[in-house]
Amino acid sequence: MPLLTTAEVRPLVISMGDPDGIGPEIITKAWKQREALNLPPFCVVGNADVFAKFAPCKIITDASDAASHFADHLLLFEVNNPQGGLAALVEATRLTVSGAARGLVTAPIAKSRLYPLGFRWPGQTEYVAEQSGVDTEQAVMMLAGPDLRTVPLTIHIPLAEVPKALTADLIIKRARIVAAALRKDFGVEKPRLVIAGLNPHAGENGSIGKEDSTIITPAVATLQAEGMDVRGPLSADTLFHQAARARYDAALCGYHDQALIPIKTLYFDSGVNVTLGLPIVRTSPDHGTAFDIAGQNIASPAAMISAIKLADDISRRRG
Amino acid sequence: MPLLTTAEVRPLVISMGDPDGIGPEIITKAWKQREALNLPPFCVVGNADVFAKFAPCKIITDASDAASHFADHLLLFEVNNPQGGLAALVEATRLTVSGAARGLVTAPIAKSRLYPLGFRWPGQTEYVAEQSGVDTEQAVMMLAGPDLRTVPLTIHIPLAEVPKALTADLIIKRARIVAAALRKDFGVEKPRLVIAGLNPHAGENGSIGKEDSTIITPAVATLQAEGMDVRGPLSADTLFHQAARARYDAALCGYHDQALIPIKTLYFDSGVNVTLGLPIVRTSPDHGTAFDIAGQNIASPAAMISAIKLADDISRRRG
Repeated sequence: MPLLTTAEVRPLVISMGDPDGIGPEIITKAWKQREALNLPPFCVVGNADVFAKFAPCKIITDASDAASHFADHLLLFEVNNPQGGLAALVEATRLTVSGAARGLVTAPIAKSRLYPLGFRWPGQTEYVAEQSGVDTEQAVMMLAGPDLRTVPLTIHIPLAEVPKALTADLIIKRARIVAAALRKDFGVEKPRLVIAGLNPHAGENGSIGKEDSTIITPAVATLQAEGMDVRGPLSADTLFHQAARARYDAALCGYHDQALIPIKTLYFDSGVNVTLGLPIVRTSPDHGTAFDIAGQNIASPAAMISAIKLADDISRRRG
Repeated sequence: MPLLTTAEVRPLVISMGDPDGIGPEIITKAWKQREALNLPPFCVVGNADVFAKFAPCKIITDASDAASHFADHLLLFEVNNPQGGLAALVEATRLTVSGAARGLVTAPIAKSRLYPLGFRWPGQTEYVAEQSGVDTEQAVMMLAGPDLRTVPLTIHIPLAEVPKALTADLIIKRARIVAAALRKDFGVEKPRLVIAGLNPHAGENGSIGKEDSTIITPAVATLQAEGMDVRGPLSADTLFHQAARARYDAALCGYHDQALIPIKTLYFDSGVNVTLGLPIVRTSPDHGTAFDIAGQNIASPAAMISAIKLADDISRRRG
């Protein structure tokens, strides 16, 4: 751990997420482990009444107050309206974009509750990207576990639309963003990327679908010509076991489940969603609101803790 | 372990697979652990010169000789031709179909080496099914690990063709075969099946693709009306972590990678491929010939050992 720098005095900020979900509970559980886990100072944007029942809270209006009070209080930028989840996202994003906070961690919100409020972005990621001045195409979702990072090249589209949506151009652009982020944010000097095959056995030389040879192979050739350490298309089923994971720094996957199945199979409780390509630092626990177990005090804070630590790491690396 | 019965005196038979692959090595490694692991008697069909360098071999011509010599010798039905892999498959299948062996374990063969020999089946599974008198549609591939069983509903077809190939009729027929096999072969009295969603988040009520609601939901309703314990479509990304795996006995998956990624991510070295719906018992290690590491004595016999044990288990259950 380097000496405390100015950057480290600035806190991280966490938006509480849906107040009826597990967000407030896992944020509070993380705060309670702040000493044991040596967590960096963070403040929360959320409803005071939601958090007061969990922990001693202190309402703040200036992020620079955070570091000196973090040890004793859960520090709260208060939002007071029934749609607190959205208001918290808006304010936490503003605090990060302004530089008052050095990184943003977002707790989960149900999209179905955002849309009726006039929220016009597909999800929190696109909102955060736009607020930080970045085209949403440049904001790349990465799922990160202790020894595996995956990037879905297409996300919330029907499986039938995936083969057409997966273009060489898309692969190339995303791979560049991922490689740059691995260097800048993860301290990987020479990033090693792999591209998962779209078809079974990566198409077996075109005998099981053409996209692997017509789309992925040329994209890999272009990236290799730029000097990138990238391999693919590789058979997706043998890409995620322990020995395979050790051979690359990130796997680019053709579609949602190809990227999410390995991460959630291995790291269901602790996976982190990190948005690459933004000028600000933004992470999120890779799970939903979990309405079914909210309020029972049984939610695991592992993913929230991992998200806080990763936001801290990235922020320190960026300096 | 029940008392020795006549059925148990009959050996299992293992086809050696491609002689240039890791098949002979992992078979021999399994035999060397026969006492430590209490493996049931098995004999091998293969080239004597291939096995002689690994272990003390005894050529046999009658499977009933196996049990009494298994402790001291690797028992070999000899095939002597350069295409030994195919000849071994043919003879091992014959021994099992005839009842001389009580179960068949097949080591891997590269399909690309079978086809030039006039082999007219897509793979070993279809050959074995036909030889045992079963329509290949009735032979269902299941991948089995210690706490996870998955069944791909479509296998070696391009991803783009999956949405059309996945029909309610297919799901219903396969689910019935899987449930019957779980009862008969795995001793699961009341099998619990799950069906993985095809689209991200199982289509989110039709907002991300229609197939989950138009194909899978009606199939599940039909199966439930038959009294089957089946749930789905369930979001595939959250279907394979430890707690989720404990809630079902087999997961039916829409396509190759959806079924294979979780199994190989968790159990790359030990997963077993078992063919359900056959009158004979047939298992196989769930890996390929691994030509790249053959001859180096570094291949893990874990999957071969698991395949032998599972064939033994199933054979005993069938009695």
